[in-house]
Amino acid sequence: MNPEPFLQLDRIIHEKGRLAIMSMLAASPELSFTEMRDALGMTDGNLTTHIRTLQEAGYLSVTKSFQNNRPHTTCSLTAAGKRAFSDYINLLEQIIRQNKPK
Amino acid sequence: MNPEPFLQLDRIIHEKGRLAIMSMLAASPELSFTEMRDALGMTDGNLTTHIRTLQEAGYLSVTKSFQNNRPHTTCSLTAAGKRAFSDYINLLEQIIRQNKPK
Repeated sequence: MNPEPFLQLDRIIHEKGRLAIMSMLAASPELSFTEMRDALGMTDGNLTTHIRTLQEAGYLSVTKSFQNNRPHTTCSLTAAGKRAFSDYINLLEQIIRQNKPK
Repeated sequence: MNPEPFLQLDRIIHEKGRLAIMSMLAASPELSFTEMRDALGMTDGNLTTHIRTLQEAGYLSVTKSFQNNRPHTTCSLTAAGKRAFSDYINLLEQIIRQNKPK
């Protein structure tokens, strides 16, 4: 067993909640806070914390605007976020190949 | 995006260090504490904590014996551990299929 791929797994993305957020955003140009919260069944606080972590890592950009006079927050992946997510998925593939019963 | 597979990922196995331990054990009938520690580059304390967590989940059994008058600890996956690991890997596959650029 080669432990290398495990050690390389990006800790920021590996957390389940953030993995789900990154996957959703990888599939859309942008998503609103509400769409993500409802799809993932997260609390506002939980989603806010994960978004902040991803933003600090440079993986996600947040846009705040107003829609019908109410604040409207949307998120999208940055170029660095797309790259990090694709690296993460490639590593997972490697781990699976390594672990599938022959 | 279907968030279901993420939510089902086994938290016990998903942690990187434990994922590495489970993978090593899935590939061998049993491994000694020393073999695992050296292959994974973990401290004794770190490996001991992960082993305890996996043991409490019923995924891993620990055998303590003596070899040349020195204590010798080996670990192996239980049937439940093998099943949980294979479920985990199957879910990862699903996540990857869902996320690969078409």
